Amino acid sequence: MDKLTLVKVGGKIVEEEQSLKQLLADFNSISGNKVLVHGGGRSATAIAKQLNIETKMVDGRRITDKPMLDVVTMVYAGLVNKNIVAGLQSLGCNAVGFCGADMDIIRSVKRPVKEIDYGFVGDVVDVNTDELRLLLDQGVTPVIAPLTHNGKGMLLNTNADTIASELAIGLSEHFNVNLVYCFEKDGVLSNPDDDSSIIHELDMQLYRQYKEDGTIAAGMIPKLDNAFRALGNGVKSVVITNANNLTKSSVKRTVVRF
Amino acid sequence: MDKLTLVKVGGKIVEEEQSLKQLLADFNSISGNKVLVHGGGRSATAIAKQLNIETKMVDGRRITDKPMLDVVTMVYAGLVNKNIVAGLQSLGCNAVGFCGADMDIIRSVKRPVKEIDYGFVGDVVDVNTDELRLLLDQGVTPVIAPLTHNGKGMLLNTNADTIASELAIGLSEHFNVNLVYCFEKDGVLSNPDDDSSIIHELDMQLYRQYKEDGTIAAGMIPKLDNAFRALGNGVKSVVITNANNLTKSSVKRTVVRF
Repeated sequence: MDKLTLVKVGGKIVEEEQSLKQLLADFNSISGNKVLVHGGGRSATAIAKQLNIETKMVDGRRITDKPMLDVVTMVYAGLVNKNIVAGLQSLGCNAVGFCGADMDIIRSVKRPVKEIDYGFVGDVVDVNTDELRLLLDQGVTPVIAPLTHNGKGMLLNTNADTIASELAIGLSEHFNVNLVYCFEKDGVLSNPDDDSSIIHELDMQLYRQYKEDGTIAAGMIPKLDNAFRALGNGVKSVVITNANNLTKSSVKRTVVRF
Repeated sequence: MDKLTLVKVGGKIVEEEQSLKQLLADFNSISGNKVLVHGGGRSATAIAKQLNIETKMVDGRRITDKPMLDVVTMVYAGLVNKNIVAGLQSLGCNAVGFCGADMDIIRSVKRPVKEIDYGFVGDVVDVNTDELRLLLDQGVTPVIAPLTHNGKGMLLNTNADTIASELAIGLSEHFNVNLVYCFEKDGVLSNPDDDSSIIHELDMQLYRQYKEDGTIAAGMIPKLDNAFRALGNGVKSVVITNANNLTKSSVKRTVVRF
């Protein structure tokens, strides 16, 4: 099977023109099949504010009412996605932008209301990579915005880390998939106050231990759960690192092992 | 060659939930290969207003400064496009949303400044339908938002009628293309005040005559210029009609002949 690199980048990097430009140049230099999954969090918050739509967060997760769903659809699938596509095209990378509704790539269900009503937020139930594979075979590079659909006409806001791991799992039927989560640190840290305290290798046993003793907490837990889920379902490797390290043969990164 | 129907729908129809729903049902019932090109004018104006961005029009054409370019990118390629895609998916139509930057489908140049500076508006220079054809052969239905790119990273706002005709011309290399322009009237009228005064057949000679005597004027002229340009470059048929007539074997329409 051919190699495929799936890179997930978060909000901050894609929001600023200079860091986005660098990211696209680095991403473009990755050889072989590649896919980019992007977030876009803060620009949605800023535009919602301008439209007098209140941003409500619970435990770092956005509550998506209908006006906010329209905002994230505009910002993620429109503004952010199409500017990334145009930027990659300018570098000679034949990019194409999708959300999960396009070609039925990612189907989800609206998250059931328990203690919290997250609103129009989707939990992934099905991934279809048939047409993606066809396009990748033609040298096309998909760029995925973090929205899915329920098959009944409803778009749903969906966590970009989850989209990255689910898509990596789906694509691993056809490719040897390397999943790279980019974020603002060089890797998973054993001491959040010390940027050099990178955990260079993290396996399931160590992860359990670090969760128990509180070394790994909060926002890193869903990211790592996604990473281990990917590894358990056919994805060859998962790396967590800074976007700046994307093309460097750097030791500054966390390799997640099953 | 296989048949392909390319339908262009304007702003008003895609803006209202009920008329959009009917349009998507009608469009979905068209058999064989099909492509939908949509506008989205007034919703962009409304959202721009909420964002305190002034809408400037000259002769019915939007002046697109940078803030307005961001708005149309959000609204056309995000909100309108993805809701159409999700709506078609719910009907079992395997739709995919693109703008002209995606897979380098439509390349344009920023319109040169003469008397009027239209801003970030693109004039089409190249259409590439290779990947579109591949997807159409898989039963995928492209939905196109009226934005193009210049190949240097810049998105450009582009007239949806022009996109429809240029795409129809490009696709006529591979398909027998029928181009259908939907608008709010049943056809081109010989008397703008009489909705029943439909010109059922319009050829080039009659068109010249009607332009000279003022029967056809204003906004119809660029639409018809696009229609004749399509017919002169390989497109099999061009029909101008009301979206309501899309699937009716109605005589309420204008057939444009070369």
